[in-house]
Amino acid sequence: MPTIALDAMGGDHAPDAIVRGAALVSTTTDIETLLVGDVERVQAILDQVPYNPEHLAIVPATGVIDMGDDPREAVRTKKDASLLVAIRAAADGRADAVVSAGNTGACILGAAGHFTLLPGIRRAALASVYPRQTEHEGQDRMALLLDVGATVRCEADELVQFALMGSAYARRISKVHEPRIGLLNMGAEPSKGGPILVEAYRRLREQTGINFVGNVEGHDLVRGKADVIVCEGLLGNVTLKHLEGVSGALEDLAKAAAEQRLVWRVGLRLLSQGIDRVQALTDYTQYGGSPILGFDRLFIKCHGRSNAHAIANAVKVAAKAVRDRVPDEIRDALGRMR
Amino acid sequence: MPTIALDAMGGDHAPDAIVRGAALVSTTTDIETLLVGDVERVQAILDQVPYNPEHLAIVPATGVIDMGDDPREAVRTKKDASLLVAIRAAADGRADAVVSAGNTGACILGAAGHFTLLPGIRRAALASVYPRQTEHEGQDRMALLLDVGATVRCEADELVQFALMGSAYARRISKVHEPRIGLLNMGAEPSKGGPILVEAYRRLREQTGINFVGNVEGHDLVRGKADVIVCEGLLGNVTLKHLEGVSGALEDLAKAAAEQRLVWRVGLRLLSQGIDRVQALTDYTQYGGSPILGFDRLFIKCHGRSNAHAIANAVKVAAKAVRDRVPDEIRDALGRMR
Repeated sequence: MPTIALDAMGGDHAPDAIVRGAALVSTTTDIETLLVGDVERVQAILDQVPYNPEHLAIVPATGVIDMGDDPREAVRTKKDASLLVAIRAAADGRADAVVSAGNTGACILGAAGHFTLLPGIRRAALASVYPRQTEHEGQDRMALLLDVGATVRCEADELVQFALMGSAYARRISKVHEPRIGLLNMGAEPSKGGPILVEAYRRLREQTGINFVGNVEGHDLVRGKADVIVCEGLLGNVTLKHLEGVSGALEDLAKAAAEQRLVWRVGLRLLSQGIDRVQALTDYTQYGGSPILGFDRLFIKCHGRSNAHAIANAVKVAAKAVRDRVPDEIRDALGRMR
Repeated sequence: MPTIALDAMGGDHAPDAIVRGAALVSTTTDIETLLVGDVERVQAILDQVPYNPEHLAIVPATGVIDMGDDPREAVRTKKDASLLVAIRAAADGRADAVVSAGNTGACILGAAGHFTLLPGIRRAALASVYPRQTEHEGQDRMALLLDVGATVRCEADELVQFALMGSAYARRISKVHEPRIGLLNMGAEPSKGGPILVEAYRRLREQTGINFVGNVEGHDLVRGKADVIVCEGLLGNVTLKHLEGVSGALEDLAKAAAEQRLVWRVGLRLLSQGIDRVQALTDYTQYGGSPILGFDRLFIKCHGRSNAHAIANAVKVAAKAVRDRVPDEIRDALGRMR
């Protein structure tokens, strides 16, 4: 069974949500979790919930990297922070993967500082699942967008590598046999988007190991046109956060409606199915986490506001990615790159 | 009174929606409209609606640039297309501004081919209004995003010019005294986004004529944090189309709900106020149009699926921009650029 190092102190609801998530995993699976953090605080939370001590160990770490910390400074000075202790546990082979809901920049820099890029990979990518409309029954309602912030600008070569990595991840984790890969662009034609995207399009068409479906535009993100969408970090980051903003606005609307007069509440109950469908669009931050791809070790970054359920999901996804040997899959895909 | 050249043949619902929009303007304002297109077809539509012939003239044009035409090819070969005849009418001084709901690329290339860039302007920008949450009563519920597709990548200098142009336009058209200008980026800190955005941030802070509020992130687009958001065309285009996609998905949801069983319809009626608020997010394509900024002549590009009401709005906005001397305002702002 895989061993997952879980940063107990990172996230908006840490350590409470993190420890409860780990406890949930310990009672429902055989996954081994190393809960890295303040031993007393972690144990105090564990004492309140059912958990299986056979599958769960506490690894002490004295420091915490806060959500607002400058990532570079924090990774340099807080060597004993739970995040970095968890990352070192994976780098040393005591764990197979890391899960954290903490400071995103520190997660990426910490991984870069201790893990090794796979052969040929130029830059790691932060991938994120996001919700989209499905086209047929049984289709995964989540698609994968990368990079969403590990890079700023990218060369064509890096975009091709992102495509190969994202394809390998989706194939293993979403069990889509041939994930459709799209290049995020400002037009469908191969000539669009400037020299780097034109070159990336040309290179992606040459790849034999992936199912490249061409350029996808902003409105295609919402439709099920591609399963993996590739772009530079600046574009992916703005796009993802924009979607979070829209989702947040819809949540506000639903809450405001729920708090209004009775007639509203009646209406809401009648419309519960519709509201559920909107909620499905807005609660994707609770969904499985965002892999950092390109290293020899796996790292699943969870949204800062993850609850216990989301953390448990992410640990399970990390374990699944270890079992399904995602880094090897990526290594093989890169070996076939043209 | 300003004279507006209106491309009668461009748009998903042309010429019907365009001509009806012009008729509406002719009976409710003193704006002079030149309806450019197929005389017989235009007159046939006019015959079905009330209009004031004193404020409305038909200018014959034999060709049409279709929505799916390659813009470069179309502008080169279809010299007699309604869009280009309308643009030449403005370039020659027979009209003060152009309005079209046609092929966006052809609109931009046509303007570039016949209008003159204002002194010092390096590149024109396509700006678009989009809906955002308001923070206080009376605040404009639309913000301005530019560039959304006239450029691909931009230098810092061009982003600063976009900020000055957008600020001048918002000041005149939205009547916001000091529009807040934001730079779209992947983080709030001045150090984010790579060399060009770091330089653009530094330059924007130096400008005295604008109210620069710093970097804005994807999620800030939805909130009322800035009134004018500046970015390169690739980023703006993907962002805007993404929002259109999300809006479209919400519309689909509302329609599907409306078609479902009676209990739904009852619920919907009770929730009509809430649905109206969601609709406000989705019908912004009917709102005033998108100015192409940077030329000595004004051009308002309407969304392809504009209805008569949207066309009438755009003609009124164009007339207002002429009366309020927006190009002069931009010229002055550029003169003060640092």
